[in-house]
Amino acid sequence: MLSVKTVEWVPDTPGRLLPGRVRILDQTLLPDNIRFIETSDIEVVWRAIRTVQVRGAPAIGVAAAMGVAAAAQRLDAPSATALVSKVAELAGYLATARPTAVNLFWALDRMKRAAARHAACLPAEIKETLVREAIRIRDEDAAMCRAIGEHGVALLHDGDTILTHCNAGALATAEFGTALAPVYVAMERGWTIRVFADETRPLLQGARLTAWELGQAGADVTLICDNVAAQVMKESRIQAVLVGADRIAANGDTANKIGTYGVAVLAKAHGIPFYVLAPSSSFDFSMPTGATIPIEERGAEEVTSGFGKRIAPREVKVYSPAFDVTPADLIAAIVCEKGIAKPDYRLSLQRPAGGQALPAE
Amino acid sequence: MLSVKTVEWVPDTPGRLLPGRVRILDQTLLPDNIRFIETSDIEVVWRAIRTVQVRGAPAIGVAAAMGVAAAAQRLDAPSATALVSKVAELAGYLATARPTAVNLFWALDRMKRAAARHAACLPAEIKETLVREAIRIRDEDAAMCRAIGEHGVALLHDGDTILTHCNAGALATAEFGTALAPVYVAMERGWTIRVFADETRPLLQGARLTAWELGQAGADVTLICDNVAAQVMKESRIQAVLVGADRIAANGDTANKIGTYGVAVLAKAHGIPFYVLAPSSSFDFSMPTGATIPIEERGAEEVTSGFGKRIAPREVKVYSPAFDVTPADLIAAIVCEKGIAKPDYRLSLQRPAGGQALPAE
Repeated sequence: MLSVKTVEWVPDTPGRLLPGRVRILDQTLLPDNIRFIETSDIEVVWRAIRTVQVRGAPAIGVAAAMGVAAAAQRLDAPSATALVSKVAELAGYLATARPTAVNLFWALDRMKRAAARHAACLPAEIKETLVREAIRIRDEDAAMCRAIGEHGVALLHDGDTILTHCNAGALATAEFGTALAPVYVAMERGWTIRVFADETRPLLQGARLTAWELGQAGADVTLICDNVAAQVMKESRIQAVLVGADRIAANGDTANKIGTYGVAVLAKAHGIPFYVLAPSSSFDFSMPTGATIPIEERGAEEVTSGFGKRIAPREVKVYSPAFDVTPADLIAAIVCEKGIAKPDYRLSLQRPAGGQALPAE
Repeated sequence: MLSVKTVEWVPDTPGRLLPGRVRILDQTLLPDNIRFIETSDIEVVWRAIRTVQVRGAPAIGVAAAMGVAAAAQRLDAPSATALVSKVAELAGYLATARPTAVNLFWALDRMKRAAARHAACLPAEIKETLVREAIRIRDEDAAMCRAIGEHGVALLHDGDTILTHCNAGALATAEFGTALAPVYVAMERGWTIRVFADETRPLLQGARLTAWELGQAGADVTLICDNVAAQVMKESRIQAVLVGADRIAANGDTANKIGTYGVAVLAKAHGIPFYVLAPSSSFDFSMPTGATIPIEERGAEEVTSGFGKRIAPREVKVYSPAFDVTPADLIAAIVCEKGIAKPDYRLSLQRPAGGQALPAE
């Protein structure tokens, strides 16, 4: 398992929970440098979220919660009411860091409510509550990832080689990740699991993050260019494909990083099962299929000079969708923290096997 | 059409064929700089071939032939016999620049034989013969590419959008290219043809070369990351895929740049015809299928720091095959200068429709 923590709480004094700071692994410096931002300054946390030093919806949520908890300790509030109000200000400020990150708002909301619930307590008690709530958010995320891993490992066998795309690993969450969680669980069991990681152009999350975190964790990882995935499948090296998800429609259609759909088509053509692993919070039952998911386009610069060097003509047109939608019929199973869903997903997503029922929304 | 010439003969005096020099477009500086190497120095030509300033089998052959012709003029040979012998020395030297380039040896051999055939003439006549032979090699290549284009355009329709991988365009040949030849022929006819160009990791020939040459030629070209090919197919934007070939087995199995096989699988899944365009000299009838074509592996550095910047962990394992083999059953037609072959390729490659019979080897 990755020994470096994406986000964690660091007490100033060993053995005492607070005061303390949030420690964030600066992912913009990976893979060359392992540096941490350790702070109780809310502006530093804001910048870390804004500039993608911390990324991945769950990890952003944890960083924000711990950032609020750390900054709240420095507040010199005359009363509990004043403190609760200032905590709401801190949370409101952090919510502006990444305007579309649902997990961010959700985590900040939990922090505000935790403070408000203790408005009758002493300010010092509220401060401790905030730290405990932030750590709880982290622990819940870690437990969710582990549950995805425990369910997902049932789809693998000792000795398997899997292929993954982008980074849905420990670096995107508090621990373990989603797509990579079964790999980490398998490693704990002493299994031999090999991983091929697509580099994932244009932003190279596979090369910079997945290859790095698996290497750090002692996993057997091989980096490939995206266009090599078909060849390694043809060479019968791959027993399963594991990917994460940004959003999953009610019928199982799955939006994920651009390139995922192509990998799914290739897996199907080679008879390799293609699995999606994501928290049930990614399920969007209000969306009957993936057809209506809008495809966000990214700027040309990420493609034409994403490496600090121009690699294409200055005036060339570029088409760079940020993600694509994999139709449910290419997906062998969808794994969430509550169990494994298999087709027909319109039924099974509401009640994955191996776990409790999901609330229908 | 590309107004810049990949390789051409430049007389010192307008209107007189010689003396003159070979002018080579330095492709290592593309797309940022359009610079030419203009020389009669055989060592400069050797270096241009060695360091991939000129690339693509046909273009390398033309550059070598013109290099020999240019350098021969500076030779102060006491007799025709001495000159013929020195020409053989020049050719032998250039043959060491890229040890596995069959076209290079073939072109140099033609130059040696042209000199030897005129051993009874004056040295000045031999020098002129060499220039004419080099220009003939270039013109034959241009005619071959045009013939591929004329045959291939029959597979397209005005208004089509095609997808291509790597660079099998004008920059790889004397003119027109192979995979892109039908696009240039269609443009001459006033058709509207749009092109999506895969960037082609790791060496980015699609981004650096294909996007550049099509843009220079006034074509409508859009650059995509390799992992976007599936998405543009899904969006019904592509009517045909056109690629080149390094080698074609007797049954039609085709070795080409890594990533080609994946594109072929995706094209099949989307009902899009996948065409291979290559000179008949790429046919290897001694090889019954592509199964025995060895897959050359490239070094990790091209993947992990191919942009002058490290983009992956230092110690990561990398799998980087230089090419892959597309099985014949994914190929809708193979186009060469002699016509169009359709399945069953074991029969049709010997006698493509629309042209003369190929010699069975």
